[in-house]
Amino acid sequence: MAFTLHERLSQDCQLVEDLALCRVLLMGDARFPWLILVPRVEGAREIIDLSEAQQQIFWRESARVSQCLLEVFKADKLNVAALGNMVPQLHVHHIARFTDDDAWPNPVWGYGEAKAYAESALKDRIATLQSHLQ
Amino acid sequence: MAFTLHERLSQDCQLVEDLALCRVLLMGDARFPWLILVPRVEGAREIIDLSEAQQQIFWRESARVSQCLLEVFKADKLNVAALGNMVPQLHVHHIARFTDDDAWPNPVWGYGEAKAYAESALKDRIATLQSHLQ
Repeated sequence: MAFTLHERLSQDCQLVEDLALCRVLLMGDARFPWLILVPRVEGAREIIDLSEAQQQIFWRESARVSQCLLEVFKADKLNVAALGNMVPQLHVHHIARFTDDDAWPNPVWGYGEAKAYAESALKDRIATLQSHLQ
Repeated sequence: MAFTLHERLSQDCQLVEDLALCRVLLMGDARFPWLILVPRVEGAREIIDLSEAQQQIFWRESARVSQCLLEVFKADKLNVAALGNMVPQLHVHHIARFTDDDAWPNPVWGYGEAKAYAESALKDRIATLQSHLQ
């Protein structure tokens, strides 16, 4: 399957895991536990660009990642969103939100400046997510 | 099925249609063609609070509404998002976006002030959506 991750996603995120359909990325913003699912389907921009079979797999993987965020981070709320106004490649945000996080109750997009992870915190977070998603 | 629409959704939106699982609402903001799907499942806050069978119906209805927005409005992009930071009742935004709309490329939530529909424009829009979704 020819698939190239969009440059912007590649710059902003770290690889966590490849599931059957989606690449799971961690957004490089330590303020929020923030995963992005990118179906490895070249040319897809909207969820409905996926075939029906792919959509079913996609939403099962989305549910799996959502459950992971709730369990690992004890999130108060999940934000699940396909926007793509800036980056056309289909990608769906899954963000663990807390009633005391920096942006609450606003959406996180465009809110202040991203805060980089410390290197060891980033490694730990990715390892935790990998073990939970496997 | 005991189901009460959250007061805020009831205030801000107009009823378009009841599909098998979801109530389809039109957000009262004439700047954006903006539909909201509310599964008629009491107590649901997250998509993963729905049963697997309900999730499958939900995403089929989401795809149907997405297709409708693309076809009726010739949207440049769809924004599909479950946030719920303000209104806890599970509801999923489906918004037709245009590269020349008021908020582009930003998300629409919290962007400026909603613009009320003129009464006749509201009736026309709801009728168009109803005929497309039936």
